[in-house]
Amino acid sequence: MITRLSQLFVRTLREDPADAEVASHRWLVRAGYIRRAAPGIYTWLPLGLRVLHKVENVVREEMNAIGAQEVLFPALLPREPYEATHRWVDYGPNLFRVVDRKGADYLLGPTHEEMFTLLVKDLYSSYKDLPLSIYQIQTKYRDEARPRAGLLRGREFIMKDSYSFDIDDEGLEASYQAHREAYVRMFDRLGLDYVIVQATSGAMGGSASEEFLAVSASGEDTFVRSPGGYAANIEAVTTPAPPEEDASGVGPARPVDTPGTGTIDQLVEAANRAFPRADRAWTAADTLKNIVFKVVHPNGRSELLVVGLPGDREVDVKRLEAAIAPAEFAPLADEDFAAHPGLVKGYIGPVSVSEGVAVQHLGSAGPLGVRYLTDPRVVSGTSWITGANVADTHLVDVVAGRDFTADGQLDVAEVRDGDPAPDGSGPLRLARGIEMGHIFQLGRKYADALGLKVLDANGKLVTVTMGSYGVGVSRAVAAVAEATCDEKGLAWPRALAPFDVQVVATGKDPAVFAAAEQLAAELDSAGLAVLLDDRKASPGVKFADAEVLGMPTVVVVGRGLADGVVEVRDRATGERTEVEVAAAAAHLVALVTG
Amino acid sequence: MITRLSQLFVRTLREDPADAEVASHRWLVRAGYIRRAAPGIYTWLPLGLRVLHKVENVVREEMNAIGAQEVLFPALLPREPYEATHRWVDYGPNLFRVVDRKGADYLLGPTHEEMFTLLVKDLYSSYKDLPLSIYQIQTKYRDEARPRAGLLRGREFIMKDSYSFDIDDEGLEASYQAHREAYVRMFDRLGLDYVIVQATSGAMGGSASEEFLAVSASGEDTFVRSPGGYAANIEAVTTPAPPEEDASGVGPARPVDTPGTGTIDQLVEAANRAFPRADRAWTAADTLKNIVFKVVHPNGRSELLVVGLPGDREVDVKRLEAAIAPAEFAPLADEDFAAHPGLVKGYIGPVSVSEGVAVQHLGSAGPLGVRYLTDPRVVSGTSWITGANVADTHLVDVVAGRDFTADGQLDVAEVRDGDPAPDGSGPLRLARGIEMGHIFQLGRKYADALGLKVLDANGKLVTVTMGSYGVGVSRAVAAVAEATCDEKGLAWPRALAPFDVQVVATGKDPAVFAAAEQLAAELDSAGLAVLLDDRKASPGVKFADAEVLGMPTVVVVGRGLADGVVEVRDRATGERTEVEVAAAAAHLVALVTG
Repeated sequence: MITRLSQLFVRTLREDPADAEVASHRWLVRAGYIRRAAPGIYTWLPLGLRVLHKVENVVREEMNAIGAQEVLFPALLPREPYEATHRWVDYGPNLFRVVDRKGADYLLGPTHEEMFTLLVKDLYSSYKDLPLSIYQIQTKYRDEARPRAGLLRGREFIMKDSYSFDIDDEGLEASYQAHREAYVRMFDRLGLDYVIVQATSGAMGGSASEEFLAVSASGEDTFVRSPGGYAANIEAVTTPAPPEEDASGVGPARPVDTPGTGTIDQLVEAANRAFPRADRAWTAADTLKNIVFKVVHPNGRSELLVVGLPGDREVDVKRLEAAIAPAEFAPLADEDFAAHPGLVKGYIGPVSVSEGVAVQHLGSAGPLGVRYLTDPRVVSGTSWITGANVADTHLVDVVAGRDFTADGQLDVAEVRDGDPAPDGSGPLRLARGIEMGHIFQLGRKYADALGLKVLDANGKLVTVTMGSYGVGVSRAVAAVAEATCDEKGLAWPRALAPFDVQVVATGKDPAVFAAAEQLAAELDSAGLAVLLDDRKASPGVKFADAEVLGMPTVVVVGRGLADGVVEVRDRATGERTEVEVAAAAAHLVALVTG
Repeated sequence: MITRLSQLFVRTLREDPADAEVASHRWLVRAGYIRRAAPGIYTWLPLGLRVLHKVENVVREEMNAIGAQEVLFPALLPREPYEATHRWVDYGPNLFRVVDRKGADYLLGPTHEEMFTLLVKDLYSSYKDLPLSIYQIQTKYRDEARPRAGLLRGREFIMKDSYSFDIDDEGLEASYQAHREAYVRMFDRLGLDYVIVQATSGAMGGSASEEFLAVSASGEDTFVRSPGGYAANIEAVTTPAPPEEDASGVGPARPVDTPGTGTIDQLVEAANRAFPRADRAWTAADTLKNIVFKVVHPNGRSELLVVGLPGDREVDVKRLEAAIAPAEFAPLADEDFAAHPGLVKGYIGPVSVSEGVAVQHLGSAGPLGVRYLTDPRVVSGTSWITGANVADTHLVDVVAGRDFTADGQLDVAEVRDGDPAPDGSGPLRLARGIEMGHIFQLGRKYADALGLKVLDANGKLVTVTMGSYGVGVSRAVAAVAEATCDEKGLAWPRALAPFDVQVVATGKDPAVFAAAEQLAAELDSAGLAVLLDDRKASPGVKFADAEVLGMPTVVVVGRGLADGVVEVRDRATGERTEVEVAAAAAHLVALVTG
């Protein structure tokens, strides 16, 4: 069936939508593929829905190919299973909660680990039933604090989520690898430039996890790569600890007057002026910066946390968020300092000197009882200039392991271009990406919480081990648009275009329109999906719309018809070719079927 | 790809689920097609999902065939549009409401009239853009007071909803007829025995509407049919008013002592004993029964309502509910009577006699100010025995139109088998059905409320007229199961079966299993969807499961193989045919593609 633009439910817009920050959002709205219904909530118009269905089919085919079986869960889910795994609380305000007419609590599912676990528990009881991989393509909900970029970060969105169930770790590893390979084929078919990076597990729990990121400056995720092949989400980068140092020659920690040195720059300048060192100048890397955060746990309880790191590094907020999830952090305000006089703003340090003796100030063992975690670079024997917990005073020669001991490590300092990869594979380069897929080795967290056990070959009950694997299906539509669009509009790859060919009839000559109709009919009967621009509009409007709508191939039937030719335009390259009318259908079919 | 039962995610159950009232619910659960996730909320397992997708495709094809265009709206919708049409309030507790993290109100869409109206308003502006029909196949939510019968009345369910937009009434009529015909083709393809009946519009609003009911004793809807072709939902049946009577010969209303006659039966018996009439005995049809209801409006306001109807008829609760929707009713309790001493329980009537003079008691004009509505049979001049509003007393010769005037009519008395059709087409027969589709001529209600206007051919702004058309997609799966299952399990028609053929290998002979595998492979390469029972289980278990699962054709590869034959079983008829192994594939392909 030929689709006629005169009847298609679509309107292109001349203006960018006010809230569009990224190109895919701008063009998907301007080309009439999607429409905003509420913040982070979108309606799919006919053209957009065709692309969405094509993405769904690619995903479905690759899941079926590894033997995963499709099911479909509801979106409205009872509270109890999510209570059992603590996610009812851990998800905090990101969960849409619903109370029914009888007062029972429900949620709109953000992911379905609990429900899949219970379903398998309901049906299966023996190791003979495993391995099992089941999946769904389904609408998910997350009440994002900052929905943005159209489909890239929405509050209602479509995901493929699958779950694997195995009797042992080797089985989980095999299921995980099968999914990983399916994802490679899937994202290859979608034509995305992507990287597979190590990732953190966040609220999902579990051990190993990797993300598939579409490389894009519009992405929300930052990742690193090394020449030797290391790749990780910035949140998952681990900092190699330097060797411990011998501090036997370092004198005792001593206070120095450092008035007006509330910042690291001021401190370094004052140090080089007031107590310069002989071998080289002091740098920010010689100082130990201590930053106080308020950590808010999902149940509402909050506590203070001090992070100590070299003064030449900032805390990376995303790395911090990932490290403390599901808790969230809030920086302290002045009144928080006022409430804790032991924390002297600008002069906080792990050690205090009292009557010439260094005593630990921060940490669970210190007088404040405030948790103190340090960067991996703060190894035993390293010596630091740091706050003395007295206004306008710092301490010099504060030695880690001698003068203080942290409660543990927290690897949340910023990662910089050129930092060494943790596996020694060379300097890291930073880039940005869109999270397209995330695969997790969950292990037994959910099966334990919900009692999913089966009988093993010896008749013993054992807990099942699970994997969880997500793909952002609606997000993939935007990611592909983002990677392929240009300053004129969308430019779909053949595999995802809503129509294979757009036939544009120009001018007012009825013979031209008849020829366009006939060509469209020939393409249609050859099995191509054809969009025919049969509108009464100027060639300029039609050409511009064709560029906005982004079908990969556009055929112009117009003035050239008198000479027996039509013009074939490649949307992506802009290339134009004249083709004889009689040969046009065959030419186009060959183009499309490649 | 052959699906192996040894690996399919399914388990048949030996026991009926405790909450299963109807056969389709029982068998869909026992056969492992669906699973309850919460009251009225179901999960689709692989077999069920295959049927659901087949129903969706039938619906999609028939909608596309009438030029309707597919879109997809979110389920999570902002409050404002539903506020503008009053449905935010009118839907009352049937609406799932959600508050987001910023305190904004949302709902889970029960139907999408508002959103479609706004979308068309957003895109279109001229009569040249019309007519337009757009649809979606999408998940809907309704917080039913009594979810029941599995998929037949759920709280989360899948619907096809479409909406037509026209410039004038003729256009609406044409769009409505196109949908009606598409529905006929759709339900024919689903193999349902259905009737098209006149219906009420309920909370949807609008003028004409018809329902497609699948005839089934398990249905929640009652409908009537006459030999002459009248068909209506019981809620929509209108009672023909009899001719007015001449009451000039009837004496004045007079009180009679009727102690202990709180029921109609007692009253009729007492009347025939205490004041018998000469020509014939009094019957219940001579009495005017007055029933008090409390009507609760969606905004919470409640009022009393008295309904007067012949004593031989009960009020039909469903007809009452439909008539007063979106308000709901509650019967009065003893304390309500206590609070209204003017209503004497068992002796309520429209008229009181005070000092020998009849005065109106009920109705807006009466001393209680209680609304009084009467059955269409209570025409002017009819004479009744009815309550005197004094304990143990009734009035005789109370004449409608002379002694009292009702505030209006309310046609909510029960309809009985044999009642005359309102169009004179003969006696009505009652039956039950499952509502599969409902088509509405909405008119301009939504376009008016939301300002959907376009320019007409004269450049004048006119309000668009709309239709709304629903199909219960997930419900259709249950309706077909209900119509086709038997005491042994499901029995799918070919068009909807998850697999065309189930191949059952019996015994332990490897040659049998190899032959079954080969037959399955041949069928698979011929394009049939094949389910192969390759389990190590007894023939009895396998045959019973095949009957529970309900594929239309089952092929048994077993003992007969030694004689070169397999057995082909027809699930619906039970018929068994021996077919030569070599000819089996061709035989089955012919059967399926038949």
